[in-house]
Amino acid sequence: MHHGEGPTEKCGVVGVALADREAARPLYYSLYALQHRGQDSAGIVTHDGFQQHGHVEMGLVGDAFGPEDLEDLKGSAGIGHVRYPTEGGVNASCAQPFSVSFKSGALGLAHNGNLVNTGELRDELESLGHAFTSDGDTEVIAHDLARNLLDSDLIRAVKRTMGRIHGSYALTVMHDDAVLGVRDPRGNRPLCLGELEDGYVLASESAAIDTLDGELIRDVRPGELVVLESDGSGYDSYRLFEEETSAHCFFEHVYFARPDSVIDDRLVYEARRNLGRALWDESGIDTDVVMPVPDSGRAFASGYADAAGEVDADVEFAEGLMKNRYVGRTFIMPTQDERERAVRLKLNPIRSTVEGRTVTLIDDSIVRGTTSTQLVDLLRDAGAEEVHLRIGAPPIVAPCYMGIDMATREELVAADRSTEEVRAAVGADSLSYLSIDAVADAIGQSRADLCLGCVTGAYPFDVDGEETDREIDRPVTSGGEPADD
Amino acid sequence: MHHGEGPTEKCGVVGVALADREAARPLYYSLYALQHRGQDSAGIVTHDGFQQHGHVEMGLVGDAFGPEDLEDLKGSAGIGHVRYPTEGGVNASCAQPFSVSFKSGALGLAHNGNLVNTGELRDELESLGHAFTSDGDTEVIAHDLARNLLDSDLIRAVKRTMGRIHGSYALTVMHDDAVLGVRDPRGNRPLCLGELEDGYVLASESAAIDTLDGELIRDVRPGELVVLESDGSGYDSYRLFEEETSAHCFFEHVYFARPDSVIDDRLVYEARRNLGRALWDESGIDTDVVMPVPDSGRAFASGYADAAGEVDADVEFAEGLMKNRYVGRTFIMPTQDERERAVRLKLNPIRSTVEGRTVTLIDDSIVRGTTSTQLVDLLRDAGAEEVHLRIGAPPIVAPCYMGIDMATREELVAADRSTEEVRAAVGADSLSYLSIDAVADAIGQSRADLCLGCVTGAYPFDVDGEETDREIDRPVTSGGEPADD
Amino acid sequence: MHHGEGPTEKCGVVGVALADREAARPLYYSLYALQHRGQDSAGIVTHDGFQQHGHVEMGLVGDAFGPEDLEDLKGSAGIGHVRYPTEGGVNASCAQPFSVSFKSGALGLAHNGNLVNTGELRDELESLGHAFTSDGDTEVIAHDLARNLLDSDLIRAVKRTMGRIHGSYALTVMHDDAVLGVRDPRGNRPLCLGELEDGYVLASESAAIDTLDGELIRDVRPGELVVLESDGSGYDSYRLFEEETSAHCFFEHVYFARPDSVIDDRLVYEARRNLGRALWDESGIDTDVVMPVPDSGRAFASGYADAAGEVDADVEFAEGLMKNRYVGRTFIMPTQDERERAVRLKLNPIRSTVEGRTVTLIDDSIVRGTTSTQLVDLLRDAGAEEVHLRIGAPPIVAPCYMGIDMATREELVAADRSTEEVRAAVGADSLSYLSIDAVADAIGQSRADLCLGCVTGAYPFDVDGEETDREIDRPVTSGGEPADD
Amino acid sequence: MHHGEGPTEKCGVVGVALADREAARPLYYSLYALQHRGQDSAGIVTHDGFQQHGHVEMGLVGDAFGPEDLEDLKGSAGIGHVRYPTEGGVNASCAQPFSVSFKSGALGLAHNGNLVNTGELRDELESLGHAFTSDGDTEVIAHDLARNLLDSDLIRAVKRTMGRIHGSYALTVMHDDAVLGVRDPRGNRPLCLGELEDGYVLASESAAIDTLDGELIRDVRPGELVVLESDGSGYDSYRLFEEETSAHCFFEHVYFARPDSVIDDRLVYEARRNLGRALWDESGIDTDVVMPVPDSGRAFASGYADAAGEVDADVEFAEGLMKNRYVGRTFIMPTQDERERAVRLKLNPIRSTVEGRTVTLIDDSIVRGTTSTQLVDLLRDAGAEEVHLRIGAPPIVAPCYMGIDMATREELVAADRSTEEVRAAVGADSLSYLSIDAVADAIGQSRADLCLGCVTGAYPFDVDGEETDREIDRPVTSGGEPADD
Repeated sequence: MHHGEGPTEKCGVVGVALADREAARPLYYSLYALQHRGQDSAGIVTHDGFQQHGHVEMGLVGDAFGPEDLEDLKGSAGIGHVRYPTEGGVNASCAQPFSVSFKSGALGLAHNGNLVNTGELRDELESLGHAFTSDGDTEVIAHDLARNLLDSDLIRAVKRTMGRIHGSYALTVMHDDAVLGVRDPRGNRPLCLGELEDGYVLASESAAIDTLDGELIRDVRPGELVVLESDGSGYDSYRLFEEETSAHCFFEHVYFARPDSVIDDRLVYEARRNLGRALWDESGIDTDVVMPVPDSGRAFASGYADAAGEVDADVEFAEGLMKNRYVGRTFIMPTQDERERAVRLKLNPIRSTVEGRTVTLIDDSIVRGTTSTQLVDLLRDAGAEEVHLRIGAPPIVAPCYMGIDMATREELVAADRSTEEVRAAVGADSLSYLSIDAVADAIGQSRADLCLGCVTGAYPFDVDGEETDREIDRPVTSGGEPADD
Repeated sequence: MHHGEGPTEKCGVVGVALADREAARPLYYSLYALQHRGQDSAGIVTHDGFQQHGHVEMGLVGDAFGPEDLEDLKGSAGIGHVRYPTEGGVNASCAQPFSVSFKSGALGLAHNGNLVNTGELRDELESLGHAFTSDGDTEVIAHDLARNLLDSDLIRAVKRTMGRIHGSYALTVMHDDAVLGVRDPRGNRPLCLGELEDGYVLASESAAIDTLDGELIRDVRPGELVVLESDGSGYDSYRLFEEETSAHCFFEHVYFARPDSVIDDRLVYEARRNLGRALWDESGIDTDVVMPVPDSGRAFASGYADAAGEVDADVEFAEGLMKNRYVGRTFIMPTQDERERAVRLKLNPIRSTVEGRTVTLIDDSIVRGTTSTQLVDLLRDAGAEEVHLRIGAPPIVAPCYMGIDMATREELVAADRSTEEVRAAVGADSLSYLSIDAVADAIGQSRADLCLGCVTGAYPFDVDGEETDREIDRPVTSGGEPADD
Repeated sequence: MHHGEGPTEKCGVVGVALADREAARPLYYSLYALQHRGQDSAGIVTHDGFQQHGHVEMGLVGDAFGPEDLEDLKGSAGIGHVRYPTEGGVNASCAQPFSVSFKSGALGLAHNGNLVNTGELRDELESLGHAFTSDGDTEVIAHDLARNLLDSDLIRAVKRTMGRIHGSYALTVMHDDAVLGVRDPRGNRPLCLGELEDGYVLASESAAIDTLDGELIRDVRPGELVVLESDGSGYDSYRLFEEETSAHCFFEHVYFARPDSVIDDRLVYEARRNLGRALWDESGIDTDVVMPVPDSGRAFASGYADAAGEVDADVEFAEGLMKNRYVGRTFIMPTQDERERAVRLKLNPIRSTVEGRTVTLIDDSIVRGTTSTQLVDLLRDAGAEEVHLRIGAPPIVAPCYMGIDMATREELVAADRSTEEVRAAVGADSLSYLSIDAVADAIGQSRADLCLGCVTGAYPFDVDGEETDREIDRPVTSGGEPADD
Repeated sequence: MHHGEGPTEKCGVVGVALADREAARPLYYSLYALQHRGQDSAGIVTHDGFQQHGHVEMGLVGDAFGPEDLEDLKGSAGIGHVRYPTEGGVNASCAQPFSVSFKSGALGLAHNGNLVNTGELRDELESLGHAFTSDGDTEVIAHDLARNLLDSDLIRAVKRTMGRIHGSYALTVMHDDAVLGVRDPRGNRPLCLGELEDGYVLASESAAIDTLDGELIRDVRPGELVVLESDGSGYDSYRLFEEETSAHCFFEHVYFARPDSVIDDRLVYEARRNLGRALWDESGIDTDVVMPVPDSGRAFASGYADAAGEVDADVEFAEGLMKNRYVGRTFIMPTQDERERAVRLKLNPIRSTVEGRTVTLIDDSIVRGTTSTQLVDLLRDAGAEEVHLRIGAPPIVAPCYMGIDMATREELVAADRSTEEVRAAVGADSLSYLSIDAVADAIGQSRADLCLGCVTGAYPFDVDGEETDREIDRPVTSGGEPADD
C-alpha cells in the first residue's frame, strides 16, 4: 500500500522526566522519530516545577519548532504529540498536547486513540457547567480528570476517569511536573516505557527511545498507569484495570509502526518478514520475479522471497518500481489526460525487469484499491506478461473506529467485494491476501487478543451503528496456481 | 504622540445580525475599520442556525483571512475581534473571539477591557471543576456565563455574570445565533449600535458602522445589554445596571478612536479640534510657526491654529515634520551612533520651515517622553530658535488598568516629575499640557463621568496596589509667555 | 489623486562614497527614504576596493534586506535602487542595480527614466555580438558604457554613451569603486548632490540626504557628470552636455516627490502650497467647507485655504475624508454590490462636516478619474449639497514616455474629453484644473524649461507614434461661480 | 554513502519539442524526475514561435513553480534545469536556464558540467566588449555562441563554440524555438534522447523520459549535436567531434543517477547489483549478516548477497539500519554532546539484528568518512561483534573538476591515507573497496573510456594545479579473511 492513499494513524505521543536536563530537546527528537504517526501538527508541553510551558503548531516537527521555541520550553519534564487531521478538519485548536489549568494545578494531555462515548461524557460534564473549546476527545478527558482531581489523589482520579472513558487510548499526561502514561484496558494503541541515562521516557513506539539512546524496558500494559518520578529517578506502576483479553491493533505491525520499533517484544521488521514468509506459505506462486511496492512492501517481499528461495533458489527478487523521493505536497497535479502517465512521477517501473515476464507484486495491504490498480497498470504498460498481487494482511472490509483514519466503508474496495471481485477491480492475474490466523501467528499473538474490527467488522468496543458480533469471513485468494512446496 | 511609543488599545469588537446575507464579509470589513485598535490577531465567529464557525489567526485582518476562510464562515450572524498583545505575551490561544460549547449551546465572546477580579472568579470556578486553557479574562467570562446559563435564561444569566465581573468591558457575545452587546455599568470602554439596510450592528466605534454603509443609532449605555434579533429585524435593550456616574475613557477621544468615529454624540475629529482650541486658550504662545506632530497632533494643531488665528491672523500653520509612511516592522535598526540620525527616517524636519524660527509643536499626549525628546532635538538640529510643546491632554501620571497597555509607572515620564521637570527632560523651551477640566469640557462630559485614572492615579474600580482616593493635581504649564488673548 | 490609481514613478536612485565607513547602511536608509518612488524591488551594489558585492530582491526595502545582507555588502562606496514594475512585467532579472563585469572592471548601474532609442542601440550592440539578459534600458546603457570603456577613459566613455542614448535618465553608476551620477542633458528626472560628515551622496531626492544627516549641495545639472572621490574626500563635476532649454518633469513637484524634498531650490511642500494658492486665484469658489483628498491634496488645500482666508476669513478648512492606513495589499475585494460601499474602507466621509453643505474638494491631479468619481459619490451620499473639485495641475491628456507609468491614453479620462465632459464624468458640480502657466510660475520655472508631454501631448524627445508639435490647449475650468476676489 | 555528506551532482538538464502541446508541463514533470540532481533552483524557458518565456526560481521544483507560472510558459518547445549550489554561493543570478537575446534571436542554455577554460574565454570575450552578469560558465558559453551566430549558421556556430570550450558539458539549448542537445567530445556528463507520442525529449537521465511515458532512443554521443524539429516531428544528429576515447563519469552509475535510469544501455540498478556481485567476488567475507546503508547501498548489498548466496545459502541479508524519512532541512541540530546520539534520528540500528553478531555493511562510496565512522560506531553501540565495511567503488583520492561538488582534497579521507589507514579512521574491522577494473567491467565500459579523475588523480582535461599523468594506485582491501569461494 502506498502512503497517501493508505490509512493514516492519528497520533504519536511521548513523555519524559529527566534528572537535571531540560526536557525540550529530547521531546523534540522523539517527536521527530514519531513523525510518521502524524504530520499535521506537533506540540510540546513542559513544566519547570513552577509553571507549565507549551508550544503547539501546525506542520511538521521541524517546521513547528524553532530554536527559541525549544529554549522557552523550560523544565526537565514534559510531554509531546504529533497528530493527523481528524474528521472535523484540522485547526490549531485541535492540535495537542491539550493544556488546561484548574483548581489543583495544570494539566497537559497527549492522546492517541479514539473514544466511543465522548458525546455522553460531554453532555454529563456540560450539565455540571463545563464549557468546551473543541470537539476533541482530549478536552473531554482533561475536564473529567480535572474534575476527579478536585477530591481525589492522582492515582484514584486517573482510575475514575479510566472507568468512565470507553474506547482506545494511549495517553501521556502532565499533572504539574508529574509525567504519566496510560494505556486503555484492552491495550489497543501502543505505548512503551524506556530508560535513559538520566531519566525515563514513555512513547508510542520504541524507536523514539532508541533516538534518545535509551533502552526499551517494556510495553505499558493494558489498563496500566505508569507515573514517572519528576526527578527522573524512577517510575511507579499501577495496574488499574485488568481484562481477560486484549485488543491490540495488528495494523501497527502491518503498516503503521516503524520497522525498527519493537511492539510486544517483537521487532516490527521481523514481524513483516514473517508475514511475508506466511504469505509464501499460504499462496506462493511461481513467477519470474518477485518485487515489492516501495517502501511499504519491502520487508514483506524480503520474507516472501526468502521463503520462496528455500524451496526454489531460482526465484529472482528485484526492485522493479523506483520511487521518486521528491514528490511532495506542492506538486502541481497533472491534467486529467496526463494523470495516468504521471503516476510514473512517483513510481517508475523498470522495463528491463518487467518486460515479457511474470511478476509477483508484494504489498502490505489494500485500502481503496486505487494504488494497486495503478501499479498493475504500470507493470502491464511496461510489458509484464502476468501480474500477481500478494498482500501481507487480510482484506480490509470495515472502517476503523479505534483511532486510525482508514477510509469510510464506501471507499474500502473490499467492503462489499469478494476477493475475486477485488482481483478483477485492480486488474491483477491473481490476488491473495493473508489469512487472519496467519497474521496472529506471525506477530505472535493469539487471535483473541487482537482488534480485528477492520478485517471482520466486529469491534472490541460498542460502536454506534455497528454490530458487535458481525464477523466477515471470506476466502482470501483468487486466481493463480499455488507454487509447489 | 507618535504611534509606536504611545499607549496601545487592547481590542476592538464587533457583532452583526443580518436578514439574509452572510455575516462574514461585513464582519471582515468592520474589523478592517477597527484595525487601529489591535494588530496582533483577528478573529470572526459566526453561527448558521445549526452550528458555530470560527476563524482566528495572528496578524492583521488582511493577512488573517483568505477568501476561503470567509466562505467557510457560514451564517447571517456573527461577532469579530481584533486584539493587541497582553502582558502574558501573544499567542494563538489568547486570540479572540473565544468560543466554547456547553450544555445549552455554543458561546462566542469578544472582549475589550480589563477585569480586576479575574483571579478570584477563576479560583471560584476552578473549585467547581472548571479547567482553563488560557490566562485570559474572556475565558473566565465565558465559563461564568455558561454556568449561569445552566439554570437561567439568557438575560438573567448575563445579568448574573455582570454582577460578578468587575472592571471595564465592552463585549460582543454570540449565544448560538443570538448576537449580544454588553457594556460595563460605568461605560468605560466604548460600544455603539448601528442599523444597516438589512440588519443591525454593534461595534467599538461608529466608523465600523459607516464602513458597512449603516447609520449610527446611539452608544450602548453603561450597564446595558443589547440583543440583536437573529433575523436582523430589530434589537432589544435591557438596562441591567444603572450607576450614578460613568467612567468613560477620555483617552478614546484624545488618542485611540478614529477621528471619523462619533462617541457620545461627538465626532472625535471635532473633539480634538476643540481640545486644540482649549489648548490655545489655556496656554497659547506667540511663535513664528505652529506645527503638528504627524499624524497624532494634526487635528489638535488645526484647532489651536484656528483659535490663534482668530486673535492673530499672522500665525503660520505648517507641516514641518514629514512622515515616511513606509517605515515598517521589518526595518533594520541603525547602530547606536546612527540611531539619533535615523529618527529622520520616520520624521524629517523641513529646514526652511524651521530654521531661525520659533516653533510651537502640538501633540496629543506624552507617555514615555522619548518621541517628544527626539522631536525637540530634530527641530533644534534643523535650526529652530525656540521649541514650545503644547499637549492636548493632561500629564499621564499613572498606569491604566482598564484595558489600555499604556506603560508601567516607571516608564511614564510624568509619573514622578513636575511639568517643569518634564519640560527639562524633553528639552523644550516651554511645555503646557491641557487641564483636566478643559478636557471634560471639550469632549462634553462632566468630570465626574470620566475615568481619569491615568491622569490622577484615582481609579473607578478597586485596583490591587493602587489607592482609590489618591489624586494627583499639578500645574500643567511650564515656561513660555502666554499669548495675548 | 489617490495613490493606487495614480501614476507610478518608476524608480529612485542613490549613490554614496564615504571615508571610512561601510556604505551599506547609509544606502539602505536612503532607499528607505526613497521608498515612495518604487516598491517592487530594492537593490544595493557596493565595492570594497577589490570586488563588487550586490544584493537585489523583490519587495520593499525592509523586506528585501536582512541584517546579514547588509553585512555582506562590504565597501565604503556603493549605489542603490528602488523600482516600480515596468510594462514587461516584474521579475527579478529587471530589478536593479544592474551589474556586469567586463574587460576593465565591474560596472553597476541604477537608472531612473526612460530611453527612447533603446531598440536601435540594442540592435547595434547585438550586431557587435552583445547578448542581453533583459529587456531593460539599463542593460543597454551598461553594455554601451562597457564597450566605450574598452578604449576610453571613464569621463570620455560616459560622454560617448550619453551622446548615444536618448531620453530621460538620472543614473548612479559604479565603475569599480568609483561612484558616478549622471543626469540627462534636458534634466528630465531629478538627481541631487549632498555632503555628509565623512563623504558625499547622490540621490533622486534631497530627503534621502536629510535621512543621512547630510546637507544638500545642489541639483546635479542637466548634462552633468558628477564623480565622487572613492575616499569620500570630494567630487568632480563635468558638464558634458549643455542644451538651451531643460525639460524638468513638473509632476515631481505636483505628485511624486516627497513634500520634504527640495528640487531646484524649492521645497516641494511649499511648491504645493503655492499651487494651491494659485488654484484659489484662478478658480476659487465660495463654499461652506474646503477639504483635501488625503494625503495627496493636503498641501494644496492648505495653500488654497490660506489664499481664500486672506479674502474671506470665514472659509472653513476641515478634514472630511478619513483614511484607513491599514488597507493593504492582502485586502479581500468586496463583491460587486458591496464594492461601492467598500470605498469607505479606505476613505470614510465625516457626515457632520459634509451634510447639507457645499464642499470644495482639493486634489493634486486626475488620471483615470475613478477615484474622483468615487469621492464625489461618497460626499453626495454623506449629504453634501454641492461638490466642487479643484485640481492643482492641468488636465493630463497624454501618456508619459519619460519614465512614469501613468496610464495609457485610453485610460486617461481627460485624453479625449473636454473639462466639461470630465466634470460630467466624475459627477462634480464644478471642476477646475490649474493652468500650465500657473504651474510653471508656482514652481519657479519658465514654461520652456518644463517637460509638459502629459498635459500637452508634445514631448521633449522624439517618441515613436507621437507628434512632437501637437499641443493640446483647452479651458481648464467648467462650472461653478468664481469666488469674488 | 549517506546523502548529505556525499558528493553533490551539480545539475540536471532537459529539453522537449512537441507537435501541438504546451511544453511547460512535460518540462515540469521531467525536472521533478531529475530533482535528485539539484535541489537549489529550478527553471524552465520556453518559446512560442514569437517570443521566449522564462521562469527560474530558487528552491525545489514543486516550490519554484505555481500553476500560473506553468500557464505563462507558452510554447510547445522548451528547456529546463535543476541545479546545485556552486562554489560562488547560490543566488538567483546563477540559477538556470540562462537566457539572453542577441542579434539573431533569443538563446536559452541549461548546462550540466564544468569548463576548465572559462577564465580565458571570458577575458577574450571581454576584450571584444562583452559584459557579464554572473561568474558562471553558462553565460560564457551563451556569449560565445551568440557571437558565433553573428556570421554562422546554427550547426557551424555550435561547432565553433564546442571547439573553444574545454571541459565537461551536457547542454540543452534553445535558439528561438529550436531545441538542441550537446554533449562534450569525451561524453563526460550524461545526456540521452527519447521519443514521445507527439515529440522528442532530451534529458540528463532516461528516468525523465519514462515520466513522460516516452521511449529512450539512445544516449547522445560524445561530441554530438542533436537538433529537435520544432514541431516535434523528428530530430537531426550532427557528430561534430569524434575523439578516440571517452571520459564517461563512472560515478553516475555508482551514485548519482536514479537506479531506474539507463545509461549506455545499462540499467543503473543492474549496474549497482553487478558492482555488489563484483565486491563479493573481490573481497567477500563470511559474516552473520549482510546489511546495506540505506538507501545508497541497497542495490549493491542485494547483488553482494546474491553472489554470496550462490556459494553459501546461509548468508542472511537484512535491513539493520532504519532511516527516518522526515529528517529535513529545518531540523534543529543537537548540541555537541547530544550529537553522537542524534545520528540515530536519521538512522536507527536494529539491536536484534546486530547484537552479538558479525556484520558486513555495504555502501557505495566513502567521501569524507564521517558517515562511515558514525555507522560503524552505531553498530558497535548496538552490540555488533565485528563490523566489516565493503564499498562498491574505489577509494576517492582526488577532487572532481568535471561538475561534481565532491569535496576538497583535504576533506577526502582517502586522499592521503592508505586503505588500512582509512579502515583505522572509520573504526571498521576490515574495509574493502572495489578495484577500478572491476568497476569498468561491471558497468560494461573499457577503463580507457572512463573519467577516473577522482579515483586516480589523473584527469581527462587539463586542470590547473593538477598533474595529468599522476596516477594513484593502491591496494583496496585491508583486514578481514576472504570468504572461501
